[in-house]
Amino acid sequence: MQNFVFENPTKIVFGRGQIKKIGCETAKFGKKVLMVYGQGSVKRSGIYDQVVASLKAADIEIVEFPGVKSNPVLSHALKGIGIARREAVDAVLAVGGGSVIDTAKTIAVGAKTDDDVWDYFVRAKTIQDALPILTVVTISASASEMNPAAVITKEDGARKFSIRSPFIQPKTSILDPAALFTLSPAYSAYSAVDAITHMLEGYFNNREPHSPLQDRLVEGLIKTIMESAEAILKEPADYDARANMMWAATLAFNGLTTAGMGMISLPAHMIEHSLSAIYDIAHGAGLSIVLPGWMFYAVEKDPVKFARLGRKLFGIEDDDNLKAGMEGISRLKEWFSSIGSPVSLGEANIPEEDIEKIAENAHVLAQAWGLRDYTEEIIVDILSLCK
Amino acid sequence: MQNFVFENPTKIVFGRGQIKKIGCETAKFGKKVLMVYGQGSVKRSGIYDQVVASLKAADIEIVEFPGVKSNPVLSHALKGIGIARREAVDAVLAVGGGSVIDTAKTIAVGAKTDDDVWDYFVRAKTIQDALPILTVVTISASASEMNPAAVITKEDGARKFSIRSPFIQPKTSILDPAALFTLSPAYSAYSAVDAITHMLEGYFNNREPHSPLQDRLVEGLIKTIMESAEAILKEPADYDARANMMWAATLAFNGLTTAGMGMISLPAHMIEHSLSAIYDIAHGAGLSIVLPGWMFYAVEKDPVKFARLGRKLFGIEDDDNLKAGMEGISRLKEWFSSIGSPVSLGEANIPEEDIEKIAENAHVLAQAWGLRDYTEEIIVDILSLCK
Repeated sequence: MQNFVFENPTKIVFGRGQIKKIGCETAKFGKKVLMVYGQGSVKRSGIYDQVVASLKAADIEIVEFPGVKSNPVLSHALKGIGIARREAVDAVLAVGGGSVIDTAKTIAVGAKTDDDVWDYFVRAKTIQDALPILTVVTISASASEMNPAAVITKEDGARKFSIRSPFIQPKTSILDPAALFTLSPAYSAYSAVDAITHMLEGYFNNREPHSPLQDRLVEGLIKTIMESAEAILKEPADYDARANMMWAATLAFNGLTTAGMGMISLPAHMIEHSLSAIYDIAHGAGLSIVLPGWMFYAVEKDPVKFARLGRKLFGIEDDDNLKAGMEGISRLKEWFSSIGSPVSLGEANIPEEDIEKIAENAHVLAQAWGLRDYTEEIIVDILSLCK
Repeated sequence: MQNFVFENPTKIVFGRGQIKKIGCETAKFGKKVLMVYGQGSVKRSGIYDQVVASLKAADIEIVEFPGVKSNPVLSHALKGIGIARREAVDAVLAVGGGSVIDTAKTIAVGAKTDDDVWDYFVRAKTIQDALPILTVVTISASASEMNPAAVITKEDGARKFSIRSPFIQPKTSILDPAALFTLSPAYSAYSAVDAITHMLEGYFNNREPHSPLQDRLVEGLIKTIMESAEAILKEPADYDARANMMWAATLAFNGLTTAGMGMISLPAHMIEHSLSAIYDIAHGAGLSIVLPGWMFYAVEKDPVKFARLGRKLFGIEDDDNLKAGMEGISRLKEWFSSIGSPVSLGEANIPEEDIEKIAENAHVLAQAWGLRDYTEEIIVDILSLCK
């Protein structure tokens, strides 16, 4: 076990009918809130009405900031920062999934500084403050509702970069699994892929040779997500399946499974960020393309661990570690495909001829994240395994 | 999944050499601290010196309050409350295991009120405030370092009761696995029993029919604790084994494994509290006597779940659930015995003739905890299975 600090003070209010509590939770942080949301699905699902009613009942003044797209962009967040400053809001409330929450986090930071917020994404400066952030979760995948990170794309140069700071850890997040009943099959599948990838990046890319506790946590959470996703695709309003998926996705990337693992690198995320920055495909869809390719690239370096995963998830019995590892990757890839997530660049209409362009973009992020082993050539090799 | 609120803001500083950070962590909460510890083992192990050096380096004034015994008693905590008030300390620092931490919590509450603190234990009044609490953990079993509960025995009447409040959630806990190298084999074993029992109480005694996520977390943590305990008994200075045990024991009772399970009842703890209140045996030793007895009592009510545990922990292959469940309990009991923890009243020199007296004492707690199914007769039946 590596040394670690674990501190995750976000208050999670989980369950059916809990959205009505957002007014009282918000009132702890002020009287005027910037309400950030997306393209209108929260209005169609009725969640918007529930949130507004609760805020009004708590006498909270609401400034609306809709329009967040998936793969959220810096230019939109900058508009939100302008509004948050002009309206002098006390807090920022995200009603949505990872894209909305990450936009809200960026706004919360930008509203409290005269710095160019992009300086924080390129690690030129360190975040010193932020408005309080609250969330009502409508897509469960990113765990942004319970972690101190956010990802934004700067359109100029297609740079999908991230920030990390205790100041952007949400104060309170409300997770009502029933709010996910109307989430499409495609996005339900992408959510599962995203949460699984978060955990497998830590499982395979850490500095700890001996991690029985974390390995078991990851294997248990992945099994839960897989069976929940299958149940959700059969019955989108299966409350228990939505609930297990929602809480597992939060635990998947809230620091629990990586505590004690030392520095984690995220090579699949690094490459995927370029896909969704350039082609605007859903993050989860990009991950189901990149992750198996990266795994086929990495399996020979650590066949024992890859074999372990294959045996635990799929009951593979082959005693040969490399064979069991390879078989496990194939089974995971098949499973991604079975839930409707793409597993090749072609399926997402990304031309093979673009591989070098994607690798060039990804390499900038590899350098920013300190992934020195990932040269452009290696990224090209990995992308070639994603065809 | 039942509705739940999860909020656990304790900052965990985990790892080798981390005790030196207690000074800076304490300084966040004031300049004068009550340092609570036990019978002197922290002096022999050198942890006392490390803590004092760190506090002094941070210019913290130290008021010492040693003398906590295992199964801590109210009269001793009351003395601590008197000192904390008189010395007007800003915070309470526990250096020890569950007994020391729970005494520190009781003092932290008592120092901020004119109420009789026992009123909080009998649930006559609700805790409204407490001094900030910090801990340096030297026995890893209770998870008190990361939860909002404390247990104290009032000698008059041998009442071992508990409090629960967000005010007694520690601010910061330092967990250095190397601090456990000198922990005796007996207490290392009792720690494992305690942590396993915390989880099995929730696993079997909850209101949630469908809990795949929590079940897997529990099974993974128990396996980790079992293999770590075995390694520790072979080599007390096995850092990885101590580390895995330490973090698993904290996660075992910090709210993680029970979130979403609804109200949890703790019948084995309820009965054990009477054993350790009357006979002053170690809590873990009492639990390894009571838990298998309670399991044999309960297996027929839920053979499917008991069989699941037996299959997951011991690979039992019997298809008959009741048989597999019974076999699993026997195997767990044998395992407790194999690590040196007693599994019968006789082994702990508790006379069988006392069973009715113990049941009478336990029944008071059963009523206080709302365990209405547990009549004196039923408690006698369970204790009869602990012979």
